[in-house]
Amino acid sequence: MGSVSTQVTLAKERDNATFDPNLMDLFINGEAWVNTRNKILDVVRKQPEIFDMSDIYFLNREGEVEKLLKQEKRVAELIQQKKLTDDDAMAITYIQDASGPYRLHRGMFMPTLERQATDEQKKAFLEKARNYEIIGCYAQTEMGHGSNVRGLETTATYIQETDEFEVDSPTLTSTKWWIGGLGVAATHACVMAQLIIKNKNYGVYPIVVPIRSTVDHKPLPGVSVGDHGPKMGFNGVDNGFVNFDKVRVPRFNLLQRYITVDNQGNVTIPSDVDPRVTYSTMVYVRSNIVNIMGKELSKAVTIAVRYTSVRRQFGDDPNKSENPVLDYPIVQYRLIPLVAKTYMMLGMSHEFYANYERCRMAIEKNNDFSLLKEMHAVSCGLKKWCSDTTVYGIDTCRHVCGGHGFSLFSGLNTAFANLYPNIIWEGDNFVLAQQTARYILKVAENSMNSSPIESDDPTSQIFKKFKYDLPKRKISNNKLWNSEITPQTVVSNEQLLLNILAYKVAHQAYTLATKINVDKQSWNDSLVAVQILSTVYSEYMLCHYFYKHLGKLSQFNKPESDKLASPLSTLMKIGALGFLLRNTGELYDLPEETRISNHKIIDGLETEYLNLIKSARKIAVPLVDALGIPDEKLNSSLGRYDGNVYEDYMTRALSEPLNREKMGDELREQIFKRYIEPVTKYAKL
Amino acid sequence: MGSVSTQVTLAKERDNATFDPNLMDLFINGEAWVNTRNKILDVVRKQPEIFDMSDIYFLNREGEVEKLLKQEKRVAELIQQKKLTDDDAMAITYIQDASGPYRLHRGMFMPTLERQATDEQKKAFLEKARNYEIIGCYAQTEMGHGSNVRGLETTATYIQETDEFEVDSPTLTSTKWWIGGLGVAATHACVMAQLIIKNKNYGVYPIVVPIRSTVDHKPLPGVSVGDHGPKMGFNGVDNGFVNFDKVRVPRFNLLQRYITVDNQGNVTIPSDVDPRVTYSTMVYVRSNIVNIMGKELSKAVTIAVRYTSVRRQFGDDPNKSENPVLDYPIVQYRLIPLVAKTYMMLGMSHEFYANYERCRMAIEKNNDFSLLKEMHAVSCGLKKWCSDTTVYGIDTCRHVCGGHGFSLFSGLNTAFANLYPNIIWEGDNFVLAQQTARYILKVAENSMNSSPIESDDPTSQIFKKFKYDLPKRKISNNKLWNSEITPQTVVSNEQLLLNILAYKVAHQAYTLATKINVDKQSWNDSLVAVQILSTVYSEYMLCHYFYKHLGKLSQFNKPESDKLASPLSTLMKIGALGFLLRNTGELYDLPEETRISNHKIIDGLETEYLNLIKSARKIAVPLVDALGIPDEKLNSSLGRYDGNVYEDYMTRALSEPLNREKMGDELREQIFKRYIEPVTKYAKL
Repeated sequence: MGSVSTQVTLAKERDNATFDPNLMDLFINGEAWVNTRNKILDVVRKQPEIFDMSDIYFLNREGEVEKLLKQEKRVAELIQQKKLTDDDAMAITYIQDASGPYRLHRGMFMPTLERQATDEQKKAFLEKARNYEIIGCYAQTEMGHGSNVRGLETTATYIQETDEFEVDSPTLTSTKWWIGGLGVAATHACVMAQLIIKNKNYGVYPIVVPIRSTVDHKPLPGVSVGDHGPKMGFNGVDNGFVNFDKVRVPRFNLLQRYITVDNQGNVTIPSDVDPRVTYSTMVYVRSNIVNIMGKELSKAVTIAVRYTSVRRQFGDDPNKSENPVLDYPIVQYRLIPLVAKTYMMLGMSHEFYANYERCRMAIEKNNDFSLLKEMHAVSCGLKKWCSDTTVYGIDTCRHVCGGHGFSLFSGLNTAFANLYPNIIWEGDNFVLAQQTARYILKVAENSMNSSPIESDDPTSQIFKKFKYDLPKRKISNNKLWNSEITPQTVVSNEQLLLNILAYKVAHQAYTLATKINVDKQSWNDSLVAVQILSTVYSEYMLCHYFYKHLGKLSQFNKPESDKLASPLSTLMKIGALGFLLRNTGELYDLPEETRISNHKIIDGLETEYLNLIKSARKIAVPLVDALGIPDEKLNSSLGRYDGNVYEDYMTRALSEPLNREKMGDELREQIFKRYIEPVTKYAKL
Repeated sequence: MGSVSTQVTLAKERDNATFDPNLMDLFINGEAWVNTRNKILDVVRKQPEIFDMSDIYFLNREGEVEKLLKQEKRVAELIQQKKLTDDDAMAITYIQDASGPYRLHRGMFMPTLERQATDEQKKAFLEKARNYEIIGCYAQTEMGHGSNVRGLETTATYIQETDEFEVDSPTLTSTKWWIGGLGVAATHACVMAQLIIKNKNYGVYPIVVPIRSTVDHKPLPGVSVGDHGPKMGFNGVDNGFVNFDKVRVPRFNLLQRYITVDNQGNVTIPSDVDPRVTYSTMVYVRSNIVNIMGKELSKAVTIAVRYTSVRRQFGDDPNKSENPVLDYPIVQYRLIPLVAKTYMMLGMSHEFYANYERCRMAIEKNNDFSLLKEMHAVSCGLKKWCSDTTVYGIDTCRHVCGGHGFSLFSGLNTAFANLYPNIIWEGDNFVLAQQTARYILKVAENSMNSSPIESDDPTSQIFKKFKYDLPKRKISNNKLWNSEITPQTVVSNEQLLLNILAYKVAHQAYTLATKINVDKQSWNDSLVAVQILSTVYSEYMLCHYFYKHLGKLSQFNKPESDKLASPLSTLMKIGALGFLLRNTGELYDLPEETRISNHKIIDGLETEYLNLIKSARKIAVPLVDALGIPDEKLNSSLGRYDGNVYEDYMTRALSEPLNREKMGDELREQIFKRYIEPVTKYAKL
């Protein structure tokens, strides 16, 4: 049986490139990110004794926390020396593919102070936090209370005699839980508590509570604090619990940007505060998840595409090498659409984030909240869609890698496990879909009521284009397309694909709105339709924003821009067609006059879809190369840039503790003496 | 805010039982299994110092292997003392929810000797293996070779001079890999190697190779062996690698039941050997996976149903307790169908296994292989369906548990990780679907060719009932149902539901067969249809066998049997309707004359589906209680029988090594001194 080296195979795949991967990297990731990535790689590669992650697969919880804290120490030093910014520190988390105990110090503690502390409080807390003099965490979730923030049980009661707040956990279920940074590291917690003043409950507000001594790091009196144990992933972060037994803190510690309490217990709400600001924080956090998901799926598709290109299995000629696994259509069918979705998420995020920034500036500069509702709806929908796609996309990548995907050395298992919480935190995905759907339905209803659509945001545009004709009880614009419709015309025209996706959104929204408003179907009985509506809407938005970003290709000169445009257009078509064919019932459900809801067209679209996938397979390796994921982040035998899969795999296996010289020898000797020999000896008696 | 204890809530849920959970347990699990379970629980509970698994979540690889070997030692002793059987040992693996290093000794090494060794060889190897004098493993997979057994590179070359075989690993990729029991424990390997005699390759055969000394357990000369490192799950098993550098073994060690080699190198194949016997081994292994999956999903649905019954979130009245999460339709919609599928898998497996036994007896007693093809097709299809359903069902259970599902203490993460390989090993699920589809297509084609269908196996029955009318180019029996069809008539009649599911299989099979045979569509271009065909077929088979098992309810007296029948019928309807609505495109695709492929019916079926789910929610806790999963297997704070969720959760958290007295104190002190203090101190300078 012949055999071709994996390195040679991968090099040959690279010869198929029809575009410059570096230029593609620049376009799809953006120059700013490429620069940050290079800066971080420089830091990380200079100190492998601190930042090398290859041993992470052998560590237990304690080992992971310790390893990550060692890295956090170095990062904090570099920040103190002004060599790194906070954003850089976040980027290190991404490159290293592991979060550490200070993630929430940077990601939640400091931003909360930034937004909710007065200037005086910023001086007292935020400046110290920035300088790592204190380490903070954000303590909101409780053991018995998650999404329903109003249901939190922890109290902060004003004690006028001493001008203090008494922070208390009245029950077991009120124990703060899941708090990143709290288990081992934090000195301070920003505690969300029911604010009680003179027996009146003002609702939930943040209050800064010191929890560990800054001298010896021992828990302060009344504070029971600890790590809450091992998790599916994310084990470098010390998620922990804390329970307060009537802990007193100065009144000053209540963050007073949005509420003011004086020493008589008088409460005032500043006049310049719009409650929707809190709302915009959620949009911010979800937008960040949306932005990071494409970067994370990039890792998984890089590993899976490279490995299935070099992994061989079966073949027609026993005298030749077996076939690369990626040559099998069933593997392409599972993997190539994920490459497409990765590109679409990356491209979309530039435009989506720009929109978020526009929205934020309008609020900050002009107190103009008009863009917020749309941003909120889209961020909920895309947070769900992107996190689902990434988490389960990683799972698919693991599965196409076959048995070796199951080894930690694949790099895919830690990625899956660490990213998994994104489908739950910051709003569970099933709950978020409902929020998105409510907004879509409202816009749809407005359009049905014939009120003129004035806004030019993307959602309104859908319902303007496909307006409901109330007397006729259907979408008035039935000229969705003018020419004869065939699978080929659909696929050759991105704008037409976008229109069909938008039409699907409008059709489903009108149908559901009618059921709810006319047939009086309850929201609970609408749950399936609600989830689907959020999905088709998010699919449309992804395509919309990605297509918009393709317009930016003109920043490059010809013919380079054309060389990039062609594969990007293929990827967009694969994405969009995949959405149309995800559940063909949705297409059959469209009105007959759309001329798309019939077997022949749907069958034809399926054929086109497979053809596009086949054509993208040829450039799959250059496409993942262009995602620019360094070997450091891959941390994978299967996905290495040089294709040196099996040698690397064996090297890693040999460093398994059970095999190591001395340590492994002693372990195995002990195991044999204790457990194996007694049994085999007895048997011989 | 009021609050109800979780224990009280769970007890109240149990009051809703309309049937006796113990009787249901007996029916759905079968008396034999209930007895085995009790026997095993007795063993396990008597020696908690060996068998208690509550600390498993804190152990690293080495710790897990050692813990499991300690249990293996005790199990081996009990087997040596004839107090446990090999089957009992397998059942312990299930109850403990963890596999140990001897799993493959029992599951593959001994069965291979059983089937492929001569009597003399059995005396030499099998008897010692049974008595745990030697510990074996089954070494087939290589680093570079999985599914394609013919592509294995390891050789066993006959050396006539010394009457030995020389076992050799010629390349890195020929290193045996993924071999359970090999990493640390095994003394012997049953190696699958290319048999080469006088320069002729006879294909792959098993040969027993001693790999470690039975005296000091050190690797024997020429053998490089070790553990191949950490995995996503299954870490109590020492999957390992071995590389042979021209290792000599006596000719005797080649298992010679199916091939005989004499000392002149003459090869003979015994005349009584039918090559299909090997084929039947695969059917056996896959049938075992099919049988275990329902038992495994039982654990996950038990945890999720109990926890979502006591977990509260949001509510209309701030003065009352929040609502149990399971009261939300979107949670029911995700969870209740999984309870239905669990029951269906359990019920199906009794009938399916009985069929397998019939097939095996026919082969063994009468050399009659007529039942094997059907068994092979169904076992491939159900292996895929059941393992997909269980693995991703566990994932859904984890997700409905919200954040706490992410904690290892939920019990769901280890279950997911340990069971994950079932979608890959013993035939990757995507490959198996193709095998199933090929068989269905063959039966369909026979029926299209108007050859009379003689067999009465379930597949033939589908195509007999829905025979293709060649001249009319459609299914001849268009009276799928006689009466007026409404969503209500469909749901009220299990037989009708079965018929629709069978019709879907026939319709899809005929359509695909026509595309392949008439339109000359290639197999590669048929891949989507092939996967779907295998799925709808497996869904039908699941329902068919489950419905058959419901006939066995008559073993109980009335009214007990009726009390069991009612919820079981509801569960079957939920399962069947879920299959019909999985992708409504499949229903729309049916011919118009079936009178089911239209919006009104499909909409109506969706409503019925939601209603059935709602009605099953009331008895969800008794339904999972009846699955009979002991707290030992759950090993879960969230799923405990007594509902004492949060206290247990806190107790487990406190035993996290980072929190433990002394050990944790020292660890945290060290972490503070090394990594935290230097940073905060510097900041203060």
